[in-house]
Amino acid sequence: AMDGAPLPSSPAGLSAYVAVSQLLGLTLLATTGAWLGRYRGGVAWHSPLQFNTHPLCMVLGMVFLQGDAILVYRVFRHEAKRSTKALHALLHGLALVIALVGIIAVFESHQTKGIPNMYSLHSWCGMATFVLYLLQWLLGCGFFLFPGASFLLRERYKPQHVFFGIALFILSITSCLLGITEMLLFKISDSYSHFVPEGILANTLGVLLVAFGLVVGYVLTREEWKRQPLVEELALSMDFKTLTEGESPGDGSQ
Amino acid sequence: AMDGAPLPSSPAGLSAYVAVSQLLGLTLLATTGAWLGRYRGGVAWHSPLQFNTHPLCMVLGMVFLQGDAILVYRVFRHEAKRSTKALHALLHGLALVIALVGIIAVFESHQTKGIPNMYSLHSWCGMATFVLYLLQWLLGCGFFLFPGASFLLRERYKPQHVFFGIALFILSITSCLLGITEMLLFKISDSYSHFVPEGILANTLGVLLVAFGLVVGYVLTREEWKRQPLVEELALSMDFKTLTEGESPGDGSQ
Repeated sequence: AMDGAPLPSSPAGLSAYVAVSQLLGLTLLATTGAWLGRYRGGVAWHSPLQFNTHPLCMVLGMVFLQGDAILVYRVFRHEAKRSTKALHALLHGLALVIALVGIIAVFESHQTKGIPNMYSLHSWCGMATFVLYLLQWLLGCGFFLFPGASFLLRERYKPQHVFFGIALFILSITSCLLGITEMLLFKISDSYSHFVPEGILANTLGVLLVAFGLVVGYVLTREEWKRQPLVEELALSMDFKTLTEGESPGDGSQ
Repeated sequence: AMDGAPLPSSPAGLSAYVAVSQLLGLTLLATTGAWLGRYRGGVAWHSPLQFNTHPLCMVLGMVFLQGDAILVYRVFRHEAKRSTKALHALLHGLALVIALVGIIAVFESHQTKGIPNMYSLHSWCGMATFVLYLLQWLLGCGFFLFPGASFLLRERYKPQHVFFGIALFILSITSCLLGITEMLLFKISDSYSHFVPEGILANTLGVLLVAFGLVVGYVLTREEWKRQPLVEELALSMDFKTLTEGESPGDGSQ
C-alpha cells in the first residue's frame, strides 16, 4: 500500500468464514476449559486430575490446531508456497506433540486408577486417528518438504494427502464426540437424562466441534477459495508441463 | 454390444471401489443384525425389543441407503441424467422413511420404559442430522427434480447441495458411532472394559461404519471419477453458456 500498488485481495466471503472458524475454535477451548474447570475439578498433571489434561489437549491439538494447519493455504494465499508449507507442517507437528501429551495423560491416569486401556470405540477411533495422523505427517514431510521427491511424484501423492488429511480431521472430531459421550456416561450417568447443566454444556461442546468442522470443511472445499498458484509458480509449472508433455499427473494411472 | 458398438466403460478402479463399498455396506447390516440378534434378543415392534429396531433402521437408512444414493452419479455414469436423478431422490426418500421408522421406534420404546428423550449428545446429533437431511431432500427435489428452477439457479445451488449432502452423510455415521457407545455403556458398562465379545463386535461395527464412509467419500471426491456430461448434455450446456455469457455461475456472488 505504501508504494501505491494494490494489495492482493482475498476472495469475498473467505475472510468472514475464516474469522468465524477462529471464533468457533476459541469458543471450543473456552467451553472445554469451562466444563473441566467448573464441573470436573480443573486440570493438573501428577494428580487425580491428570485425566482432565486428555480432553483439553485433544481438543487443542487434534481439532483447533489441526484445523488451522489445514486452513493455512486458504489464509496465506499470497505468501510464497514454501513458507506456507513450512507453517502447515509446523502447526501439524505442534498438534501432534500436544495430542501425544493428551494420550500420555490418559494412559498414566488409567495406570494410577487401575482402569484397562483401549477397550472402547472411542479409544479405537482415537488411537487409529492419532497413528494415521502421525503417518500422514511423516509422509507429507517426506514428499513435500524435503527435496527428494520429484514434481511428478508430488503431484501424484497430493490428492491422497488432501483426502486423508480431511478424513483424519473429521475422524478427530468424531473421536472427541465419542469421548464426550463416554465421559458423561461415566461421570453423570444418573443425572444426564435430567438435563443437568453439565450435560447441556458438554453436549454444546459436541455441537461446537461439529460446527467448527463444518466451517473448516466449507472453506476447504469451496472451489473458488482454493489457493491459486502465484505468477512465478505458474511460470515454473508451465515450464514443467512443457518438459513432461504426454505424462500428465492427472491421467489416472495408479 | 449386440450391434457391435463398444460399451461405454467406467474409469479403471471405480468398479472395484464401488464393489468394496457394497460389500462393506452388507457387512454393516450383517454385523448390526448379529449384534442385536446374538446379544440383544433380536428385533421386534410392539415388544420390549422395539428399541432394537432403532439401530437397525438407522444403519440401513441413514448409512447404507444414503451412501448408495450418493454414489448413483458415479455408478450410473452413462444413463440419462434425469433417470439417475430420479434414482438419487428415490433412494434418499427410502432412507428417510426407514430412518423415520427407526426414530419412532426409539421414542415409543422410551415412552413405554419411562426414559426421557433428547438429552444425550447422540440424540442431539442424530435428530439434527435427520431434520437437516429431510430439509436437504425437500430442497433437492424443489431445485433439481421439479421443473421450476432455472438452469442458473440449479448451478448456483448445486455446490451447496453437494457439500451439505456429504456433511450429512458423515454426521449420520458419527451419530451411529455415538449411539453404539451409548448403548454399550448402558447395557454392558460392567463388562465392556474386559474386552467381552459383545463389546468387540460393536466396536468392530463402528470401525466398519468408518470404513464405509471412507470408501464412499473416496469414490465421491476423486476428480477423475466424477460423472462427465453425456454428449447431448454437453451440447445443451454449451448453448446455455453462449446465451448467458457474462453471468457465470462461478462468479462467487451470494
